[in-house]
Parts: sequence; structure tokens; C-alpha cells
Amino acid sequence: MRATTNAFSFFAAAMLASLTSGSVLAADAPAQKAKTMADVLAASKPSDWRALDPANTLYIDLAAGRVVMELAPEFAPLHAQNIRTMAREHYFDGLAILRVQDNFVTQWGDPDGDKPEKAHPFGKASKTLAPEFERAIAKDLPFTPLPDGDVYAPEVGFSNGMPAARDRKSDKTWLAHCYGMVGAGRDVGVETGPGSELYVVIGQAPRQLDRNIALVGRVVQGMELLSALPRGTGALGFYEKPEQRVPIKSVRLAAEVPAAERTNLEVLRTDSQTFTDLVEARRNRRDDWYKVPAGRIDLCNVPIPARIPESAAPK
Amino acid sequence: MRATTNAFSFFAAAMLASLTSGSVLAADAPAQKAKTMADVLAASKPSDWRALDPANTLYIDLAAGRVVMELAPEFAPLHAQNIRTMAREHYFDGLAILRVQDNFVTQWGDPDGDKPEKAHPFGKASKTLAPEFERAIAKDLPFTPLPDGDVYAPEVGFSNGMPAARDRKSDKTWLAHCYGMVGAGRDVGVETGPGSELYVVIGQAPRQLDRNIALVGRVVQGMELLSALPRGTGALGFYEKPEQRVPIKSVRLAAEVPAAERTNLEVLRTDSQTFTDLVEARRNRRDDWYKVPAGRIDLCNVPIPARIPESAAPK
Repeated sequence: MRATTNAFSFFAAAMLASLTSGSVLAADAPAQKAKTMADVLAASKPSDWRALDPANTLYIDLAAGRVVMELAPEFAPLHAQNIRTMAREHYFDGLAILRVQDNFVTQWGDPDGDKPEKAHPFGKASKTLAPEFERAIAKDLPFTPLPDGDVYAPEVGFSNGMPAARDRKSDKTWLAHCYGMVGAGRDVGVETGPGSELYVVIGQAPRQLDRNIALVGRVVQGMELLSALPRGTGALGFYEKPEQRVPIKSVRLAAEVPAAERTNLEVLRTDSQTFTDLVEARRNRRDDWYKVPAGRIDLCNVPIPARIPESAAPK
Repeated sequence: MRATTNAFSFFAAAMLASLTSGSVLAADAPAQKAKTMADVLAASKPSDWRALDPANTLYIDLAAGRVVMELAPEFAPLHAQNIRTMAREHYFDGLAILRVQDNFVTQWGDPDGDKPEKAHPFGKASKTLAPEFERAIAKDLPFTPLPDGDVYAPEVGFSNGMPAARDRKSDKTWLAHCYGMVGAGRDVGVETGPGSELYVVIGQAPRQLDRNIALVGRVVQGMELLSALPRGTGALGFYEKPEQRVPIKSVRLAAEVPAAERTNLEVLRTDSQTFTDLVEARRNRRDDWYKVPAGRIDLCNVPIPARIPESAAPK
């Protein structure tokens, strides 16, 4: 295998290391003046990381493995609550991935959702929900600005580990449709997306959806289980035959799963100096391969690293 | 199936229609004040479209189907020429897709490229090539500016159906790493990427690669054959076992393929008024589903439609 072995190495090496061990390897990184992402992560302190909150974490279990998703209750509290309720009542168990549209979204839910007599019952969950497309800016809502500019919003940055945008003029802030962000599909009515049909971004950030639909969280691990699926050949990427759908074994709140069956993950705090250093390492790539550092970075190109905590790593 | 059936319908409906028939259906589009993309395409004139030039089109044939790629000789003339030579000499036949890194690239080439005794011979093709990472701005090089701004470049737009950027201060222009763009992988040396190992962008636009590597073209049809592959589990997304690799049956220049075996496609001219109208229809989505038109659009979110010409459509 020739070419590009060094081309794109640092991101992947760091991510792989970060997902398999508490200590990050920088095997490919020769001595450099400027820090690479691997260097930055290797120098991180334990306090730069936060464990996923089990009350705020969903496990989407497929035959191929587990997708770990973090909810965003600060931006979509009603949706987070409704999705928690649905998970507790096993609403999603036995449902399926219905749609995979290339360079857009993978979507799952109830294939019989529009047939009242066959639809999965909502139980205590709401069938409609007030729109949570944006919210007021608040002092107690963290926001780490990204000063690089943005095509879509006056200001962008990160809030509790999620890409976000805000507009001080209107005093509004909202989550941004970056790769891996999860939203609550809706029909034309703004209250028709209660979280029973969810989609995840699998391509170029469809930022035109921002402020038009409720983003409810982010996939922290297992994106490849959702992004590498066969594309649906029907309109909008829906699978045309029921047997093409990918069954969902279960969707559980981590808090409802026995501790031994949980996936322990830590996410780099986006309000840490280490994260700011990481953004700079990605903004200006200075390893030998890069000849022209970009000088800027797009919101949706900033990685938000996760890792298995050292205490949980296999010995 | 409930929710979002209307959410994302226009793009897909238009694309599907545009790929299956010369006449574009706007089945989902009710009467609107502003035009949707489907409306814009339905109103297009034959002269808004250009046929792919067989001397400039590659067919990458896999067991699962054909990927159609357009070369970019205006930006990478040496690479285009070298890749044509390799295709004529059947360099790629029997090689394989070696790497699929989630949210980044799918890459193909010679698994034994670094073993002199086993590597596929280059024949008349060059093993090294001068870097074609950017070029001079020129009057005879079309450029349709996109006025929406960009995080990475002073100016962005479209040139001969490809996303591009330019900097008038340095008098340079270059292709942009958007979804579906194809580049020539290289090692650390800038002359080490002769086009024998190619990659295509399958995730968020990695614009930090712009001006660091030669982009040589764009996938016009068949992206799902490259984007939906299993992700490699090795470093950088390389497949760890030879049997995981996806064999390449052949890579042919369309001009070398009998007319009856060609894939006839037309691409919307990016210097047409119809394309400008399409950009506006995508910049401000005004169908009932959208509540807040974005007002701006990112370079890599602009679709570049292709269709089967009416004369070639099945009757």
C-alpha cells in the first residue's frame, strides 16, 4: 500500500487510540514544533474529560453492534424527556432503520407509524411535542466560541460537547447539523416530531435544517454502524422492501442497563483548554505531510474525541 | 412510515428524477411562490446541460456496479493525462479498494504498490508527477462565484461543474474537497501522488486538504458504491485483511469503451442561469416544511445535478 499512509494519519491514530485506551498513542508523530492532535490528547489531564451521564445516554443495539448516543437536554429538554420515556417503555425495540439517503441521513422508527391499528403504542410518551428548534442564550449554558467564522450563523462554537450556533441579536442559540448529530424527524407541522423517528447526519453538514427541526443529541460511538449501511433506493432513500430494513434490537437508556453491560466512555470537555488546543492543532496542521495549513476550521470539522476511561480499559 | 416524509423530499425527488429521466418530476411540490429545485430543473433548457466528454470520463467498474467520474484537466492536466494513460494500460484492473475511513475518504489502488517485485507496472504512466494543488486564475477558466462566503477561502464558486476556490491576491485557484471529489493520494513528498492511488471524499468536506494534494475530478454517479462500504478497522480505515478489500474489475476511459456500453450522462452547466436559480432554490428553501430559510449556502452543500439525456432514456 502506497501513498497517503502518512497523509491522514494523525486524526485516525488519535481517535483509534482514544477509543481503545485511556492513554493516547502518538506513534506516527515525529518531534514537531507545533502540537498535533495526538500530542494534545496525550498531554490531557483527567479533568479534561467527562464521563457520559447514564441518565443522558442511549444505547441503540443492532445486530452489528452498539451505537452510543448522548442526549442534549439543555437544547431539547422535552424531546430528551420523551425519548427517555420511550426507551424505558421499549418503544423502539423491534422497530428498524427505514431510510439511508446518501450524503444526508440515516433514519429509524416505526415502519407502521402511519397505520393507527399497527403502530407501536406510545404509552406514556407524547405523540406531539412543542418545537425545540432553538432556545434563549443563557449564562448557565456553556458556549466555547469558535472564532473561525461560519457560512450559516453569526456565531458558532461548542456547548456541552455539541456543535452549536447563536445569534446575540435575537438572543437565540441552537444546535448545528454536523456529522453524527441526531434529530427528531417531523412532518410539516412543527409539533409532529416527538422523537419517535430519529435521524443522524451521515454526510456533508445539512445546515439548512438548523432551526427547522429539533436536534436531540449526538452519536459518540458507533457512527459506522449507521453510515455504512446500504443506501435505500426508494424516494428519499427509504428502503423499498421490508426485508431491506435494519432491525433495532433495543434502545435503552444507559441508566436502565446493568452496570456490567454499559459502554463506559468519556468525552473531551469542550470548555477545556485541551479542547481549545486541539482545535488549534486541527486548524493548522503542521506535520510534515501538510504544506499549507488551512488557518481556519469549519465548525463541523472539529473532532470531539471520546475514549474509554483508563479504569475501564481492558488490562 | 411517519415523519420527515415531506421533510427532505425535494432534493431527493429531483435527483432521482434527474437521474432516471430527461424530464424532471416535481410530484411532491405543490404550487409555491418561490421555485424549488425540482421546479428549476423542470424549467431547464437542453442547452443548460452538457454531455460528459468520453475522453474525460472514467468508469470504475465494481461487482456492485459502475462509478462514473469526470476528470478535471483544467486544474490537474498532468494527473488527468497520467490517469488516462493508466486506464488505457489497464493499470487499475484487478486492484482494489483498500481503505474506507468513516466521515473521511474511500481510497483505492495497488495493495502491493510498496513491494517493487509485486507492484502493478506503470507502463507508460509516470510514477511521480509535479504537484497540481493550485493553478493560476485565467480568463478562459470559467468561475461562477458563490457569494455566500466560506470559512476556508477568500472566494468560492464553480468551475466546469466542480466546486472551486480562489484567491485573487495570490492569483491562484484550486478545487475544493467537497463530498464526491476525487484526489490523488500522496506520501510526504509533493510529487509522490501520480494518480495511481485515488481517494474520494465520503463525509464532511475535509477542506484542510485543499491546496495540499491534487484533486483530479468528481464522482458524477455511483457515489453510494463507494460511500456505503464497510469501514476499515485498521489505522486510517485501511482494511486489515486482504479478503475485506473490494476488487476493482476495471477502470476505463469512456472513450475506450464501445458506445453501447457507455453510461450516458449530462451534467447541469454551472455557468448557466438555471444553475444560479438552483443555488437560490437551495439557499432559501421555501416549501411548506421549512420554517426558517437558511439565507446562505455552503459551497459543498450545492448539488450539481446529473441526468440521463432524453435521447438515451429507456422508452
